[in-house]
Amino acid sequence: MDYQSTLDEICAELKPKLGMEGAVANYIPALARIEPCQFGIALRTRNGEEAWAGDATTPFSIQSISKVFSLTLAMRLVGEQLWERIDREPSGNPFNSLMQLESEQGIPRNPFINAGAIAVADRLISSGYAPKTEMLDMVSSLCDEPIEVDREVAASEAATGFRNEAMASFIKSFGKLDNDVATVLDLYYRQCAIRMNALQLARATGYLCRDGAHPYSGIQVISDRQARRINALMLTCGTYDAAGEFAFRIGIPCKSGVGGGIIAVVPDTLSLCVWSPALDENHNSVLGQEALELFANRTGLSIF
Amino acid sequence: MDYQSTLDEICAELKPKLGMEGAVANYIPALARIEPCQFGIALRTRNGEEAWAGDATTPFSIQSISKVFSLTLAMRLVGEQLWERIDREPSGNPFNSLMQLESEQGIPRNPFINAGAIAVADRLISSGYAPKTEMLDMVSSLCDEPIEVDREVAASEAATGFRNEAMASFIKSFGKLDNDVATVLDLYYRQCAIRMNALQLARATGYLCRDGAHPYSGIQVISDRQARRINALMLTCGTYDAAGEFAFRIGIPCKSGVGGGIIAVVPDTLSLCVWSPALDENHNSVLGQEALELFANRTGLSIF
Amino acid sequence: MDYQSTLDEICAELKPKLGMEGAVANYIPALARIEPCQFGIALRTRNGEEAWAGDATTPFSIQSISKVFSLTLAMRLVGEQLWERIDREPSGNPFNSLMQLESEQGIPRNPFINAGAIAVADRLISSGYAPKTEMLDMVSSLCDEPIEVDREVAASEAATGFRNEAMASFIKSFGKLDNDVATVLDLYYRQCAIRMNALQLARATGYLCRDGAHPYSGIQVISDRQARRINALMLTCGTYDAAGEFAFRIGIPCKSGVGGGIIAVVPDTLSLCVWSPALDENHNSVLGQEALELFANRTGLSIF
Amino acid sequence: MDYQSTLDEICAELKPKLGMEGAVANYIPALARIEPCQFGIALRTRNGEEAWAGDATTPFSIQSISKVFSLTLAMRLVGEQLWERIDREPSGNPFNSLMQLESEQGIPRNPFINAGAIAVADRLISSGYAPKTEMLDMVSSLCDEPIEVDREVAASEAATGFRNEAMASFIKSFGKLDNDVATVLDLYYRQCAIRMNALQLARATGYLCRDGAHPYSGIQVISDRQARRINALMLTCGTYDAAGEFAFRIGIPCKSGVGGGIIAVVPDTLSLCVWSPALDENHNSVLGQEALELFANRTGLSIF
Repeated sequence: MDYQSTLDEICAELKPKLGMEGAVANYIPALARIEPCQFGIALRTRNGEEAWAGDATTPFSIQSISKVFSLTLAMRLVGEQLWERIDREPSGNPFNSLMQLESEQGIPRNPFINAGAIAVADRLISSGYAPKTEMLDMVSSLCDEPIEVDREVAASEAATGFRNEAMASFIKSFGKLDNDVATVLDLYYRQCAIRMNALQLARATGYLCRDGAHPYSGIQVISDRQARRINALMLTCGTYDAAGEFAFRIGIPCKSGVGGGIIAVVPDTLSLCVWSPALDENHNSVLGQEALELFANRTGLSIF
Repeated sequence: MDYQSTLDEICAELKPKLGMEGAVANYIPALARIEPCQFGIALRTRNGEEAWAGDATTPFSIQSISKVFSLTLAMRLVGEQLWERIDREPSGNPFNSLMQLESEQGIPRNPFINAGAIAVADRLISSGYAPKTEMLDMVSSLCDEPIEVDREVAASEAATGFRNEAMASFIKSFGKLDNDVATVLDLYYRQCAIRMNALQLARATGYLCRDGAHPYSGIQVISDRQARRINALMLTCGTYDAAGEFAFRIGIPCKSGVGGGIIAVVPDTLSLCVWSPALDENHNSVLGQEALELFANRTGLSIF
Repeated sequence: MDYQSTLDEICAELKPKLGMEGAVANYIPALARIEPCQFGIALRTRNGEEAWAGDATTPFSIQSISKVFSLTLAMRLVGEQLWERIDREPSGNPFNSLMQLESEQGIPRNPFINAGAIAVADRLISSGYAPKTEMLDMVSSLCDEPIEVDREVAASEAATGFRNEAMASFIKSFGKLDNDVATVLDLYYRQCAIRMNALQLARATGYLCRDGAHPYSGIQVISDRQARRINALMLTCGTYDAAGEFAFRIGIPCKSGVGGGIIAVVPDTLSLCVWSPALDENHNSVLGQEALELFANRTGLSIF
Repeated sequence: MDYQSTLDEICAELKPKLGMEGAVANYIPALARIEPCQFGIALRTRNGEEAWAGDATTPFSIQSISKVFSLTLAMRLVGEQLWERIDREPSGNPFNSLMQLESEQGIPRNPFINAGAIAVADRLISSGYAPKTEMLDMVSSLCDEPIEVDREVAASEAATGFRNEAMASFIKSFGKLDNDVATVLDLYYRQCAIRMNALQLARATGYLCRDGAHPYSGIQVISDRQARRINALMLTCGTYDAAGEFAFRIGIPCKSGVGGGIIAVVPDTLSLCVWSPALDENHNSVLGQEALELFANRTGLSIF
């Protein structure tokens, strides 16, 4: 399939819509000042073929996309015990809701809502994980380029993260967080503040379309089954309150972030990243979603 | 692939577990008296190859599996307007909860929870649908055998269906149900009380693995895209509160019913039905789930 | 105390505000066409002294005020067993919410929300109560004038009462309603549709400020303790979502109705009724509340 | 009335029940080790007459009873603006629930649930209040004896107060807490850890039955109206999830604490404190409630 032409067409088709709908995340200054009229898309096939278009090499804050990487690390380091502290069901509530935590006694619904990612961070710390280097090392290796944390973003998140503090303290009040709230959130904010571009993310998520094998070295990052399970979680829980809608309209496992990025995995075929900073009311990139729908329609790629 | 051997093995492996866990649905006598120690499994591939094992030809009450057929009819008869009355998101709440209806003003979360199926039934009636014959005609044609409603079950459901009456009246109180509560529920109870066996259901759901084409005639029942969307909804919403778990462990779109049946669709490959009446606390068949997990593991079939 | 002057002053003070705020209940035509610019107030002391002002002899639909009379009858006819089906706590939710019924398994929070009054009606029917006459007989006796049901209002409530049907069916689904939904709601709608004027209501509620003794005959309607308990329930639960605010600002037990009436009881001292049809967002009469606050401030009457 | 005999009788009647029901609060060691078989009761009339019985001079941790004192201070120091940050309605949810805070955007339902008391503490700090001395000074003056904070209890509360941290952070995330979470909670834990005995509390709450006037000096602590409003809030919100039940059975405004104390105010008549450490499932003292019910029945004192 001529993926490059497809991406070029999608890019051309969406360009006139840049800036017409949605708004950039504005809860911290470093995100609020991002120019909304940007759009980039990139993919890498199972066999290493690559294609990209638009602002595919402009770095952005990966935010919640990092939850895929932290879950990957936790599956590797913690194993099945991870699931004693985190459930695997869609939440039916906003990504930062505390209500379900109360009725479910501190067990977050899944690892892709904030509460779940905080619980994952706690498990990583308890497993002996090296917080300052281990995720950056893994991600750098996966995309074959050095990756950094945006310290300004991390500091801003920390300075305004009262809701996340509430969530972490609440989990801890149920005896389901073993480490200090501050330590856990420090790790969580660092991972959210990682900066990557669409092409790097398309490469770095390649293991999810290759049965868990590293996109360059071929070494297993996680097992085949673990990779499929992450894809399943992305489909049912990866796009906040719109997971059902993504499955219905796009039919490809995705994970979005408030930086405007969305990664998508067609199992056994390709990994893709689209980025455009203006978000809809569900916190998903407006043009990112549209691009994914166009891509699914034109290529016929869908898991259903 | 030698599907017959796989089904035989699964059947042999699960036989010793018959009756060890779970309990049959007991909210109406006609379901409560079902012998729990039964297990049947059947599949039909896209190309018409069939395999079955165990009690695959024993009829049972399809219950919520009928929601797939009513949604199919509604997509055909009502089209996109259907979605003005029903959302497409996982609910995060039990299948018969009224809470979300209240905060979401009478719009059910998806067509596979009871409230959603009641809303679908209302849309069907308003579209000029012939309630006594149309679903039976479609299902009979799809499995190439005459199918009937179990009148005792339908009458029992009606006699004890206060929760469904509450739900329908509640939707109507928001102005989101156009027909009489009694008329809508009469249709709903009839569809739940359809009796079929696992082999018939494996055949009848064949259009979902054939791009919407009738399993025998090849005529489009619904479009390719509609079929894929039903599969997507089954994956995100088809198994009550356990949809995330099904996706995670089994990775195949499924729809379950309290009669103990579960249908499963591997897109472009095969449709399958497993039946065993003892249910877990989520109202899904205990051995049905186990059979599907074994099947997915042995065949490597998964959409992820 | 010169109650007549106080009521005259309040009436004069509020007249300029007639029609400036709030709106009449509009869920049924018979209530929607009520002229909003009306205001009446009446009281009767423990010793039989009376005072009234404004539209105190214009009849209106007593609506939820009837819940005080049905509770009185149920305490007399059913006794302590009544409380096996109804709790006695403020709800913290809107008067017609179904959410709490779900988490509390069909036990309404108190007898003054709709669900609770429906449960009371069910208990009355099971106790052998004569639905067509018993409440009218009691109320007529209490105010010493014949009282009637407004049949048009009762019929309209029945024709549009889907939310109440939902509630009654929901309670029944938990096994907490012994009679038919239709029978129970028929009684409930009849009591809501009783027509009385402010003076009649001030007289009829006299037993609540006289230790349960009939305002004319002196015979015990209910016991001293039962009367005090009804007053307590009015204070904690009598004014929908605004019970805390009424206690804080007015400090007198009250029960309001969507017809615009509010009854108030100063224990051992007097019973009062104020009426003005325009309601605030909590479904309490705007000027009725203001009149009660003025009355409490001028007379110094407060239970706190 | 011979209050001393009444208290003696109640004490004698309840002694055989000591230790039979309920359990002491066990969330911190300093409370968990309290001997449950203790009971004390004390009252002081509007005119300064006093009576007490049992362990009325044994000090205990006043815990949530302190919310009455902090509200008193906030009414004095902050005035009406206080109510921009706190509502005045019963919550209908457990005292430490976060659910309502989410749907109500960081505005606690009332000042007597934990979230509300935390918001009050924040308002006090912003008003220039002297955290280390001001409440102790007021309480010492009110009961005419020096009162101290139990530092061990305060430290334990702080060390395990993750739920309170969650609540404070959550309020702050809605922009409704102006001071640091740690500063606010430090004040909150100090006030909860005040140690007093039943007689001291009966004296110190005397202003609530004397139109706001200091029980010894007669100087206004707060205005008449403010005192009545605190009494109203105690009645509708003072005893956690059991406020309706207290009003129904006892009919006197009360505020309870997990240390086992309950204060009660009969307006214009007397203030009372009962203490017994074993709590029921609503966190109210088992024998404390029983004593209050006996007291209300024997004296006929009730606000209804």
